[in-house]
Parts: sequence; structure tokens; C-alpha cells
Amino acid sequence: MTELSAYMRQVGEAARAASAQVCRASTQLKNSALLAIGDEILKRRDSLMAENEKDLEAGRRNGISEPLLDRLMFTEARFESMVEGLVQVAGLEDPVGEISDMSYQPNGLQIGRMRVPLGVIGIIYESRPNVTIDAASLCLKSGNATVLRGGSEAIHSNLALASCIDAGLEAVGLPATAIQVIRDTDRALVGELVRMDQFVDVIVPRGGRGLIERIMDEATIPVIKHLDGICHVYIDEHADPEKAYNIAINAKTQRYAVCNAMETLLVSEKVAPSILPRLAAGFQAQAVELRGCEATRALLADQYQVTPATEADWFEEYLGPVLAVRIVEDLDQAIAHINRYGSNHTDSIVTENYTAGHRFLREVDSSSVMINASTRFADGFEYGLGAEIGISTDKLHARGPVGLEGLTSQKFVVFGDGQIRQ
Amino acid sequence: MTELSAYMRQVGEAARAASAQVCRASTQLKNSALLAIGDEILKRRDSLMAENEKDLEAGRRNGISEPLLDRLMFTEARFESMVEGLVQVAGLEDPVGEISDMSYQPNGLQIGRMRVPLGVIGIIYESRPNVTIDAASLCLKSGNATVLRGGSEAIHSNLALASCIDAGLEAVGLPATAIQVIRDTDRALVGELVRMDQFVDVIVPRGGRGLIERIMDEATIPVIKHLDGICHVYIDEHADPEKAYNIAINAKTQRYAVCNAMETLLVSEKVAPSILPRLAAGFQAQAVELRGCEATRALLADQYQVTPATEADWFEEYLGPVLAVRIVEDLDQAIAHINRYGSNHTDSIVTENYTAGHRFLREVDSSSVMINASTRFADGFEYGLGAEIGISTDKLHARGPVGLEGLTSQKFVVFGDGQIRQ
Repeated sequence: MTELSAYMRQVGEAARAASAQVCRASTQLKNSALLAIGDEILKRRDSLMAENEKDLEAGRRNGISEPLLDRLMFTEARFESMVEGLVQVAGLEDPVGEISDMSYQPNGLQIGRMRVPLGVIGIIYESRPNVTIDAASLCLKSGNATVLRGGSEAIHSNLALASCIDAGLEAVGLPATAIQVIRDTDRALVGELVRMDQFVDVIVPRGGRGLIERIMDEATIPVIKHLDGICHVYIDEHADPEKAYNIAINAKTQRYAVCNAMETLLVSEKVAPSILPRLAAGFQAQAVELRGCEATRALLADQYQVTPATEADWFEEYLGPVLAVRIVEDLDQAIAHINRYGSNHTDSIVTENYTAGHRFLREVDSSSVMINASTRFADGFEYGLGAEIGISTDKLHARGPVGLEGLTSQKFVVFGDGQIRQ
Repeated sequence: MTELSAYMRQVGEAARAASAQVCRASTQLKNSALLAIGDEILKRRDSLMAENEKDLEAGRRNGISEPLLDRLMFTEARFESMVEGLVQVAGLEDPVGEISDMSYQPNGLQIGRMRVPLGVIGIIYESRPNVTIDAASLCLKSGNATVLRGGSEAIHSNLALASCIDAGLEAVGLPATAIQVIRDTDRALVGELVRMDQFVDVIVPRGGRGLIERIMDEATIPVIKHLDGICHVYIDEHADPEKAYNIAINAKTQRYAVCNAMETLLVSEKVAPSILPRLAAGFQAQAVELRGCEATRALLADQYQVTPATEADWFEEYLGPVLAVRIVEDLDQAIAHINRYGSNHTDSIVTENYTAGHRFLREVDSSSVMINASTRFADGFEYGLGAEIGISTDKLHARGPVGLEGLTSQKFVVFGDGQIRQ
């Protein structure tokens, strides 16, 4: 065993041992820990800033880009937002221990389901050090032990936050090993972490597609993951034109670099002539490049610049001011397009027609399906989950925004009176 | 691409296409299909028997054991039980389309969750051909398309059942590709099937540990799996002695070769002297070999034969008339033993003490946790799920007996009125 493997084994064993304590911790104790971690962050502002400066200096030396440096940087506002996040998670309802679906069987056995933590959660993330606090707080509140592996570019900031976490946990009598930040930046550690089946129950990666794909390749542990966000808005022939305009513009332009922004606009051929030109003007006013199918170009090309869309465009997550546009024959073609080219993330239909709306809801195979709303609403806060650890595009376990409940599972509980099987 | 890969690709594409139709099929249509499949089985009795005879002959030629031949064999009773199973599944409530947790957000968006099929389910199984019908019926009722890969020893029987399925599906207007039985016995096909990410959403293996481990090694698709059933009964110091005796005897001896049979008995040192000798006599009367810890042997060795238990015994799933016995100091040690050596399957405490019972429920990390009941109750029928595709020892998605609900997932549905994000 290499030194690295020995270190990871030690982290894993400690996490597994701590999870037995965290899983039975009372809601009050977990909340106290969250607030104590917040206190430590406020108390240690100066040393946190000093450690963060080390990362920033290294980043400047290594020539990382301004936007990345900005994401790395601690500010007064970011301290407050971390502490505010901890207070919010403390305020959320604790899902652990809830018993549901309790009923009697004919033999008198009372059978139901109890919500329980998953055990040990491994978080692998990049760049923003506040994820250390966000992810740790959700895992702790849901009764899980956590192993956090941040990016090497934020190692000093993450370790400084780790010492706040340690102090907060210990202040309330929970083991510091309930939340561990990996103290080594060797990339091979990610490979070790995602194969520690005996110690880690699930991996939640937070980062770009490269990171996720690497983890999917290497992991032997289940992964709750977010792949692409190729979100669609379909403007149905029965759409209200005002809603259609507002939703399409909002879904594309309210923010570009987010997974729930629209990447492809589908429009029914029945209403394309009346709706698309106005939309094209709106997008052009915001410098959004349009890539259209032939019919779209035939309709718009006289007045607006529309690049020809290729097959690759339907698969593309632009994350920027580019939009693919296709005119479709009908609802069937729209649903088929979304299920073929989409990424099972979030898709919305604009329609006033009852049947079209309900067919879209049922047949579009995405984690969030909407009627007459902007795809931009697909997130845990907007859905009232209170917070989210991420958005899952998986189909098993948790789909869509994952809050505390997604970090738990249900086991069967059976209350007997001495029953034996005949 | 090899011929094999081309064949599997064709099966996968057809399954994906069929799943779009099955997912929107009405409950009535799915039920009609199930009953039509049952009718076909009854109609084709003779040819089913003839095809089954081919498998039996080949089995005898290859010298497979009598118990395996018996599992392979069609009988009048087994036809009836297959048809009865189809009728039962038709009678189960359809989970698809159920909307729950619907609530309004402050901006007027109405957000809830809709239960939806997983898509395409791959079933890999061994020996008993009736699994073809059992698994197919649950997958169809839950709105999924299915790809079934049975063992080569049952290929003729499975293909004969496949033709009943095809006829039943087509009789009601569903595509025969909604349920496909792989027509080739090449072992490499399993490897192909478990890596067809683009066509198959989940793999459910049904078989021995060798099969499951091979699939876990090779699969890139999520697997809902059942590993070992190392089930425990813990007789607490506050146990009712009668219940303790009956439950321990029943959990071990009612059937040996099943995953929910007890493999290790834990007894509180406070009550071991009064309870264990009587239990040892009971087990000895049924020729159950005891393998005990030192304290157990010290207590019983004068009167009963007790083999010394080694560390390996605590990890062992005997599936036969052997039982490991350990005397523990207290509840803490019992819970620690179960969480260390158990397989997260099913564990039961016998106690009249409220606190002990509730701590056991919460802290034992298994898919079924029981108080005062035999572990033998852990199955989908006994739990009132109506039927089960298997018992999951995974922690994500579905734990314990997996019925129709475990073959579905929940997506978010959002009803808006033109809302856009500010």
C-alpha cells in the first residue's frame, strides 16, 4: 500500500466510524454544530483571509484567469453568505428518522419506512471554497459523515475552513472526523476516494464535465451526478404569445452560464410565423446568436442573421449567448426531439391546451418538466427544498434538484409481537 | 462492430423506442397485455412443454444436478403459478403518473413530483424460466421496456415464453419490442448488455454472488442488486423468552437456503444462561450445527456440540443448517457487530424495552430492521408490495424488497402561469 492509499484508508475508516455517531445525533445537536461552525468562521476571519491570500498568490503565479481568481476569493460578503447558509440549513426540517407508509399486515406486523442517512458521502469539487461549507452543512444535517476533496487551487482556503469545521464540531461534542477535508492535493487521491467502497456510500461531484466523466470512469461507488443541461422551451401551437415571448427570452438570457438556461428553442410550425420574428428581434437585441433549422432560416433570414444549425447544435450546451432554433410539426415531434437530443435536465412547454400540457408532462423524460414557466426556475431554492447539493440528471435515486432528502434513503421497519413465518 | 454488438445494439434501440410507448400506456392497456400473455401461456402449453423438454434433455446430457433440473422443469402447477402471477400484477395499483408533494411557491409556481418509469430495464438471471414472466410483468406494469437475458440452460423455455409475451403484447396493440428476450446464449452478451448506457437505464441481476460480482465489475449502467443476506437476530436482555425462542428457531430453520434466514444469533450476556441452552437443544433437534464464540462454548459445551467460531464465521452466509452464535455485552456491541459483519439486509431485535428497540431501529444500517419478528418476513409479498423484483442491499434508490415503486423514479413537475425568473 502506498503512503497515499494508507492516508485515504485512514480517512475512510475515520469517516465510517464517525457516521455511526452522526446518524444518531439529534437535530438539536446537528443544528448547534452548524451554528458553531458559523461562529468559528466569523471568529477566524483574519486567518481565513490570510490563507485565502496564499491561494490567490499561487493562482496569480500560475496565471489562472480573472474569473477563476474571483471565484476563489474570500470577501466580507462571502463570509456572510457562508454563515447565512449555515443558519438556513440549521433551520431546515431534519429528514432523518421520519417514519412513513406505516400499515398493518393481516398477521399483525406493522410495516413502514424510516428515512435514514446514506452513511458516508464523498464530495469532489473544484475552485469555489464556499462549497466546502455548503456541502458539509447539508451532509451533516442529513446525518451523514463527509469526506471533502476540493481543488488544489483552493487548498489553503479549504483547510482553513476545515479548521473552523473541526472546532465547530468539537464545540458541541461531535467528532471532527464527521467532516474531513483531504489534506493532500495529489490528483491520484480522487481515484482512491471513488473506489473506497467499504468506507464511502456515495460520491457527489461538483464541477465541469471533465471532472464528472473522469469520476464516472473510475468510480466503483454510486455517483449522484449532474451532466449536461441541454434545456428546451417548446412553444406549442396553443401558446399564449406573451407568455411564450417572455419565457423564451428569460430562459435564454437571464443568465447564460447556468445549467438551467435554455439551449434549444422549439416552435410549432403553426405559430412560428407569428411568434419567431418578434423573438428573433428580442434575441438580436441582446446579441444572442441564432442557429436555425432550414425552416427557421427561411422564415427569418431576410431580416435576421441566422446561422445554419447542424446536427451537433441540437446536442450542444452553449452556456453562452447562442441559441439553437427548430421549427417542429407538432407536439410529437417536439417530445421526440427533446427525448433524443436533451440531457434529461429541464424542459418547458408554453401552451394553453390542457391535453398538450399533460402529454408533455408525462412523456418528456427529464428531471424537471414545466408548463408555462422559465427553465431558469429549476433549482433547489426555487423549488422550496431550502438548499441543494446539486441537480441530478440521473434517473435512479434522486432526479433534479437534490436537497436533504436526496442525501437520505428509506429502510423498512417492522414492528412485531413475536410473529414467526409459517 | 461484431455481429454480437450489432445484434445487441438493435435490441437496445428497439427497447428505447418501445419505452416511449410503454411509458404512456394506460393502466388498462398494460393490464390487458398481462392477461393476454397469461392466455397465451395456457394456449401454448404443449409447445412450451416440448421446448422445455429440449432444455431438460440438454441439461441431463450436460450432467446438471437434480435440484437444478427441477428448477428448470415446467409443470402444470408452474404454468398456473405463472398465470396467477400475471393476474396478481394486473391487480396491483399502477404507480405511474402519481403526483405528490404538490405545493405553491410564493411566486405562484405549483411544484410537485410525478412518478415515472425508469425507461429500459435489463434483467439478467439464471436457471428458473418463470423469472422471464415474473420480471417482465413487473417491468411492464411499471411502464418500462425490458430486455431479458436468461441462462443458456433455459434458452428454449425462455424463447417459448418470449413468443407468448410477443403474442400477448401484440394482441393489445403494444409493440413486441416492449419485452425482448435475448436470442443468443453467448456469455459475452451480458458484458454488452451492462454497458449499453444509451439504451438501458438500470440492470437488475437475479442470481448467485458470482453473477452479481461479474456484473458489478463490468457494468457502466446502475445496478439494483442483492448481495449477501447475513441476517442477525439479537436477543436483548429485556427479551420475552418465549418470543426469543420462537423467533430464533423460525428465523434459522423455517427455510435454510433463503437470503432472509438468520445466519448469526447474538445474545445479551445477561440472558444467555437462561435462554441459550434451550435454544441449543432446539437447534440440535433440527440438526443445526452451532459455531460459537468462546463464551457461548463455555456456557454450552458440556451439553451440546459447539464448534469454535472463527472471524470468518461472522462474515458467512451459510444458506444451510449452520448458525454462528455470539454472546455480546450489551446493545452497543450487538449493533456494532451487525454493522460490521452484516450485509445490510435484515436484522431483528427481540426486546420488550422501548429504548433498546428504538435505538436498534435507528442505528442498525440494514434494509429491513425489525422488532420482535422473524427475519423470514423480509420479502415483498409479506410487506404488502404485492410482488417483488428482488431485494436490494444497496443504499441508494431502493432498499429492501423492490416492488413496482422501485422500478420507477420521481421527476419534478412545475405548473406555471407565465412566470419568469427575476
